[in-house]
Amino acid sequence: MREKKKEIPEGVIRRMPRYYRKLRELLEQGVDHISSGELARIMDVTASQIRQDLNHFGGFGQYGYGYDIEFLKNRIEQILGLDKTYGMVIFGAGNLGSAMAKHTPSIPLPHHVQALFDNDPAVIGTKVGPYTVLDTADFATYIAENPAEIAVLTLPETQAQQVADLAVQGGIRAIWNFSPADIQISDPKVVIENVHLSNSLMVLTYHLSTQ
Amino acid sequence: MREKKKEIPEGVIRRMPRYYRKLRELLEQGVDHISSGELARIMDVTASQIRQDLNHFGGFGQYGYGYDIEFLKNRIEQILGLDKTYGMVIFGAGNLGSAMAKHTPSIPLPHHVQALFDNDPAVIGTKVGPYTVLDTADFATYIAENPAEIAVLTLPETQAQQVADLAVQGGIRAIWNFSPADIQISDPKVVIENVHLSNSLMVLTYHLSTQ
Repeated sequence: MREKKKEIPEGVIRRMPRYYRKLRELLEQGVDHISSGELARIMDVTASQIRQDLNHFGGFGQYGYGYDIEFLKNRIEQILGLDKTYGMVIFGAGNLGSAMAKHTPSIPLPHHVQALFDNDPAVIGTKVGPYTVLDTADFATYIAENPAEIAVLTLPETQAQQVADLAVQGGIRAIWNFSPADIQISDPKVVIENVHLSNSLMVLTYHLSTQ
Repeated sequence: MREKKKEIPEGVIRRMPRYYRKLRELLEQGVDHISSGELARIMDVTASQIRQDLNHFGGFGQYGYGYDIEFLKNRIEQILGLDKTYGMVIFGAGNLGSAMAKHTPSIPLPHHVQALFDNDPAVIGTKVGPYTVLDTADFATYIAENPAEIAVLTLPETQAQQVADLAVQGGIRAIWNFSPADIQISDPKVVIENVHLSNSLMVLTYHLSTQ
């Protein structure tokens, strides 16, 4: 049974992938246990922060011994939900959508792209990596036969909300939104993660211009 | 003269691009002024948050009148540094780097991609959109003749730090890092903005798996 996690601060959750990645690296290097002080040093955070972060999930250190890396890596894998598999459908077969379809993540993740959709007749039917681009108009039929959990939106802002609604109607439970649109979904169980590249570039530019 | 901005919370800065985008939209729709209450409603935040955010930069509301949209848009443009132009070089001509090179942002931004570099002999010299991929080994010579402000890293983790060092030696002042590497730059004036796509997908997966 998973522990109740609703109250965990978003900042803690956002640090978990970094711990996960580092623990995988250590395991690959043959390290099997580590003190919280040493883990803190190589991750450039404080030992106290690591302990506090992990305590949100029950805490996994043995006092005086430190962390068993394989155990901790496996627990974070479970916490992040990486012990299951996830089907993804990409909407938008432009530059970014095509890159996402062909992308190999830097560490193995249990997500696989099932299909790539677009509404442009010039693009539908073309090949992008191993995928033949499908027509967004056929999504409802597709998803009824090929369930998927995650929709990736690499669409113009003007199309994003409508396609998000279509995805949710088809049973999609998570939206990875690369469009600048503020997607609104009435079902609170559908999760949305935004990656706003233009906004990120503007923040970079702010910091650059104030140096 | 720019006001001193060092103490402005990062959360405030990260909301500025969203205001900027919304104000542009309103102007395009022919709206020229708006109350803070109405701006709050369409942005799905509180009027108090908007006032507090803008007060970090001096505040721009006229009591009882609201905001002059063109004035406010122009001020946020200045605050974000969007009133200057920026040259970008992309390192890594893989799927993501190529998508970035060909990408047209959803709103006009004063950034232009100057060149695309890779160290793979099979890729150097090939065309990506309008760019011929240059050899990373030639970067020092290139940048001496073609100054640029921003380096975009779409590289494997193992190459990111070395290429970031090379970029900074060449005069690059900002790094937009898409690799999962934790880049360390000793010069505190060089700014780094990380976009960790795998980490973002893991956070999405956490929220999905706890629903």
